[in-house]
Amino acid sequence: VIVVFTGGTGGAKLVQGLHQVVAPEELTVIVNTGDDIEWWGLHVSPDIDTILYALSGLLSTERGWGVEGDSFRCLERMKQLGQPSWFSLGDLDLATHLTRTAMLRAGKSLSRATTELATKLGIRARVLPMSDDRVSTMLDTAKGTLTFQEYFVRERHQVEVRRVRFEGAHRARPAPGVIESIVAAEAIIFAPSNPVTSIGPILAVLGIRDALKQTKAPIAAVSPIVGGAAVSGPAGALMKMMGWPSTIAGVAKAYEDFLDGLVADHADEAEASVLRSEDLRVRCTNTIMNSPAARRDLARFVVEACAVKRGAGVGL
Amino acid sequence: VIVVFTGGTGGAKLVQGLHQVVAPEELTVIVNTGDDIEWWGLHVSPDIDTILYALSGLLSTERGWGVEGDSFRCLERMKQLGQPSWFSLGDLDLATHLTRTAMLRAGKSLSRATTELATKLGIRARVLPMSDDRVSTMLDTAKGTLTFQEYFVRERHQVEVRRVRFEGAHRARPAPGVIESIVAAEAIIFAPSNPVTSIGPILAVLGIRDALKQTKAPIAAVSPIVGGAAVSGPAGALMKMMGWPSTIAGVAKAYEDFLDGLVADHADEAEASVLRSEDLRVRCTNTIMNSPAARRDLARFVVEACAVKRGAGVGL
Repeated sequence: VIVVFTGGTGGAKLVQGLHQVVAPEELTVIVNTGDDIEWWGLHVSPDIDTILYALSGLLSTERGWGVEGDSFRCLERMKQLGQPSWFSLGDLDLATHLTRTAMLRAGKSLSRATTELATKLGIRARVLPMSDDRVSTMLDTAKGTLTFQEYFVRERHQVEVRRVRFEGAHRARPAPGVIESIVAAEAIIFAPSNPVTSIGPILAVLGIRDALKQTKAPIAAVSPIVGGAAVSGPAGALMKMMGWPSTIAGVAKAYEDFLDGLVADHADEAEASVLRSEDLRVRCTNTIMNSPAARRDLARFVVEACAVKRGAGVGL
Repeated sequence: VIVVFTGGTGGAKLVQGLHQVVAPEELTVIVNTGDDIEWWGLHVSPDIDTILYALSGLLSTERGWGVEGDSFRCLERMKQLGQPSWFSLGDLDLATHLTRTAMLRAGKSLSRATTELATKLGIRARVLPMSDDRVSTMLDTAKGTLTFQEYFVRERHQVEVRRVRFEGAHRARPAPGVIESIVAAEAIIFAPSNPVTSIGPILAVLGIRDALKQTKAPIAAVSPIVGGAAVSGPAGALMKMMGWPSTIAGVAKAYEDFLDGLVADHADEAEASVLRSEDLRVRCTNTIMNSPAARRDLARFVVEACAVKRGAGVGL
């Protein structure tokens, strides 16, 4: 089984690629829930939904989030009724949040609700939230403390961030199956998600980082940084705030205590040759996933690179 | 101020008519909440919503409930996700339920939430739920005990009813303004709603029936029974179950302890002449409200009939 760690839209593209090259039963996706938000009284798990939609073929290609061909009629009415409207939920998308919220209120765990939603959507890959306990990514910024969605969506990540905290992480337990998946994996892949706010919350959950250090599976990351800048979103700025360079070296730094191999873009060949070492194999390919074929090719590249034993250094 | 007691779709038509002939500030609508339902985790108040939509011009003319031109995309997805789908909430309609539910969860009363929604919709008439306390109309039927919506919508009122109960009514207090409106009214009108399940729950709330007996305002009802049968819905069958004839005499019976006048349809002239007495004036007109003009004419007829003091017997 190949285990993928992922957060937002960039990660979902690699998961779509992996879904093309690996049998669905051989794919486990561990998803960030630090971005979860209570919105209009509903429990919204944006990163889980992006993965569910990606794996069921529902994901909007244009937006990278939400359901393809969705409408926003309810949202327009909510605006007229004076309700907050900066976070967009589509009419079709709403059904997912209503269903999840009903399941959680009925006492089901988030992982159970996720499995049931995945089954209803015909998904055969395994989708696991990082934890059934609530972890909230909070950003101390020039505009005060914001939740991740306030920072990312409402403020369009245009405010200076001084600190990122994962509230609740110190007492959050990994969801059932997470540690077992890490231990039993054939390979572990970090999708090109933001290392600070997409992968950071997952690594902050009790025991996950230790499991990654101890697993026998080779661990590779796909860099979300290409040519010294994030492909999309605020990864570069947040990595700098963490004291890491906003380069592929910074990505390696974020995962240094368990990473075996890094897949970078051809644009970073020079950086790659500096970074390459006995402990870290680095290989370059096209990492811009602007088509289904590009996603598949990158996924195949990463899987093939991982097809060696740990200690043998990942074939990168 | 004219005070209207109303339940479902028939009552909403008369309220639309009254809205054409009375200044909005002079209109108070007291609405049944015994049909309220928790649906997809949302608090839905079907009768209040019908009145809010009727007064804001949003009501679907074709359906008589919900928003004109609404779509049902979320509902279709809910069905695909295995959620119950026999109760239809439109995409625009959903915004009302999400907003109300958020207000209630924030600790607001149903009457406060109703006022805020009405204000947002530009409504200047006063809309009052019968009570801020939960009252549930329950029907003991051949298929077991059903909520009103299970009986009316899911079973399409095609099951035999043995008994109707208003759970919680014996400890429910009238919402703020209800008793005061009854006491201070110039006239009180019972819309042509089902006397058993639409008006019955309101009359079961503590103190409302007594206030109706004691008010100085003339009280008139518009018969929901025309030509010996309900214009729509199960009023006839339910009235029989209560031991009342399913005629205009049955309507008079339902309200006998406070009714001054009854407005019946021309189709019931013969019944009317039998029913007419010193205590109950009965007058006939066209009560089928199949156009805005018909609604306005009936409303004007009822208002003019009420323009006398109580004891003088309503000018019917």
